[in-house]
Amino acid sequence: MAETGRRRISILGSTGSIGVNTLDVVNQLGTREAFDVVAVTGNANVALLAEQARTSGAKLAVTADEKCYAALKEALAGTDIEVAAGREALIEAASRDADVVMAAIVGTAGLAPTLAAAKRGADIALANKECLVSAGELFVKAVAEGGGRLIPVDSEHSAIFQCLEDNQHHAVERIVLTASGGPFRTWSREQMAGVTADVARAHPNWSMGLKISIGSASMFNKALEMIEAKHLFNVAPEQIEVIVHPQSVIHSMVGYRDGSVLAQLGCPDMRTAIGYALTYPERPQLNVERLDFAKLARLDFEAPDEVRFPALRLARTALERGGVQGAVMNAAEEISFHAFCEGRIGFLQMADIAEQVMDDMVGYGAAASMDDVFAADAEARRRAGELIAQKEMAA
Amino acid sequence: MAETGRRRISILGSTGSIGVNTLDVVNQLGTREAFDVVAVTGNANVALLAEQARTSGAKLAVTADEKCYAALKEALAGTDIEVAAGREALIEAASRDADVVMAAIVGTAGLAPTLAAAKRGADIALANKECLVSAGELFVKAVAEGGGRLIPVDSEHSAIFQCLEDNQHHAVERIVLTASGGPFRTWSREQMAGVTADVARAHPNWSMGLKISIGSASMFNKALEMIEAKHLFNVAPEQIEVIVHPQSVIHSMVGYRDGSVLAQLGCPDMRTAIGYALTYPERPQLNVERLDFAKLARLDFEAPDEVRFPALRLARTALERGGVQGAVMNAAEEISFHAFCEGRIGFLQMADIAEQVMDDMVGYGAAASMDDVFAADAEARRRAGELIAQKEMAA
Repeated sequence: MAETGRRRISILGSTGSIGVNTLDVVNQLGTREAFDVVAVTGNANVALLAEQARTSGAKLAVTADEKCYAALKEALAGTDIEVAAGREALIEAASRDADVVMAAIVGTAGLAPTLAAAKRGADIALANKECLVSAGELFVKAVAEGGGRLIPVDSEHSAIFQCLEDNQHHAVERIVLTASGGPFRTWSREQMAGVTADVARAHPNWSMGLKISIGSASMFNKALEMIEAKHLFNVAPEQIEVIVHPQSVIHSMVGYRDGSVLAQLGCPDMRTAIGYALTYPERPQLNVERLDFAKLARLDFEAPDEVRFPALRLARTALERGGVQGAVMNAAEEISFHAFCEGRIGFLQMADIAEQVMDDMVGYGAAASMDDVFAADAEARRRAGELIAQKEMAA
Repeated sequence: MAETGRRRISILGSTGSIGVNTLDVVNQLGTREAFDVVAVTGNANVALLAEQARTSGAKLAVTADEKCYAALKEALAGTDIEVAAGREALIEAASRDADVVMAAIVGTAGLAPTLAAAKRGADIALANKECLVSAGELFVKAVAEGGGRLIPVDSEHSAIFQCLEDNQHHAVERIVLTASGGPFRTWSREQMAGVTADVARAHPNWSMGLKISIGSASMFNKALEMIEAKHLFNVAPEQIEVIVHPQSVIHSMVGYRDGSVLAQLGCPDMRTAIGYALTYPERPQLNVERLDFAKLARLDFEAPDEVRFPALRLARTALERGGVQGAVMNAAEEISFHAFCEGRIGFLQMADIAEQVMDDMVGYGAAASMDDVFAADAEARRRAGELIAQKEMAA
């Protein structure tokens, strides 16, 4: 794969917020200079997907939703852009010859395409959480066997990646994940009990998708990041700290055995982490806002509260138990999230359901294959659905 | 030179605060395992110097003060430790075969011995400011020609050194020096006008020597660090920012062209930077306090005020003028500092005198040799002395 000069890129999930920012970065770096766009993929937002394919010069546009095939085909009529649809087409797009694949499909749906790209040996710019949360060991192994690099795109993990010095991994004492604390940082459990999805999605610092916004409010997002961190950086559970930092300016930190802590800071703009992942180890020139420390004036820190935010405690449990507990936690949380958004369960019940499913499935061993991961994921979803139905009947 | 295993170290200025901390680090890492102490040097504190020589197993002990020779010789009677005294003996100590030399002699007196060590090719753990402030170009050239590495020990420059990524120097946009702001951070010029040295030396965060404490109060210390930064990191004057950060937890930062800022943080303990300099690129296991972010609770930032702290403005002037202006500023400040400590001039007059001497010597060109540096230094001292005498007569 080319280390310098033009790079071929595929963007899985190009119509989501990470995908849109990725295309902005690719544009900033000169679409037709630095990057050749191989494939873009989206879901039901056909108009945006078609526009992205046209303006980026992509060779292939794929919608995950087979029902959207005709509309996408029509929107790209008269161009040379190849059009496809469905789950297998996503995997095909991920498997096309690219130097770097932006893996930004949200949820378990991102697993198979990202794994396909990893196996082919592309560098993986990883924004999908499930690859690590649900299938950490298998995914990391697939990347290693494929020979590509794994570069996180999440601002927290990108920060840690940037603060890790080559050849000093043995000197790492702890990694410190910062958490904004979300919109309910100062709320009591009683206050949180009655909130709706519209209230919970109002994140104070970042403009994000609905799932990530709700996950920030419940700190499930941070819980998933703790599990990701374990697999990305090969650290023990007790080496992972979380600190609440409401301004989200310090994106995360690494503590070394000499007492030094290295931190990466920036304005809340995903494009810095995206650009870093696309051109690593080179740092690209990006037109993003610069930090003005005098204007910032102050940065605050608070210990996280695992009573008000039980997701953090569940993450420690999942880390200690190992096996498929990450996949189980994630699947149960995803089902609970949808039920919460539909008003079927309360905000606090998301964690209750995840915990119950995790406890009930504690006997499931480690995944020997992706099929084991999918089976645990499906079983956790089924059980979470059952619990939600029970709660609805009891209410 | 040995990159791993046992390293031979000489400590120039071992009885000062950096020297004492260096020996503590050497002890922590196992004196008789990781390091062989070649030479220790001090000034009039013969008892401490002799004790250091004995306990560290040094081969050579040198006092800079020839009057102390007999006392040092007596204190080390019955040992195999070689004893010497005087300026030439310091240079001889610096020239002994060592892998790393801790250059911690305070003031212009440190120039010649450190230069000797650099020329011989030792790695230089640099704590002396004058090597860069007064003789930056020549010193950096001497280190490069000698073939050793130059690793800063000052907490700010160590932080920057730690945040600079190999091969990404071209991507550096700015370096951000943090400044505690010293004990007079919130004082008006009128309040500062009447302070004595005893008031000014009370630094809020760090336990330091008198010269550095007063330099922190006047921010002359930070002014010198700006000039050091230019030479250490080869950046343009406009790439050097200063931000007041009262807690001194962020030791300094580097801003890159992708919007990322990397920062190094730690408790105010010189041993982290010292340990890093002694074993770089390896990070040693050190028994120093770890940062507890929840306990820290907050970090503050303020724009520096160049009206109340004119030293910062003088540093920019020196950087823009180049040549021997750094040496001139430093020499005039050193003389003014002594006059202030003796109660001969007021606190604010230190900057007035430095500025006047810098302006008067603006015609002096770049130093072609160390003799030019010493000549500019001596002339600046003479002129500063004259101005002080004039002010005394006027008062």
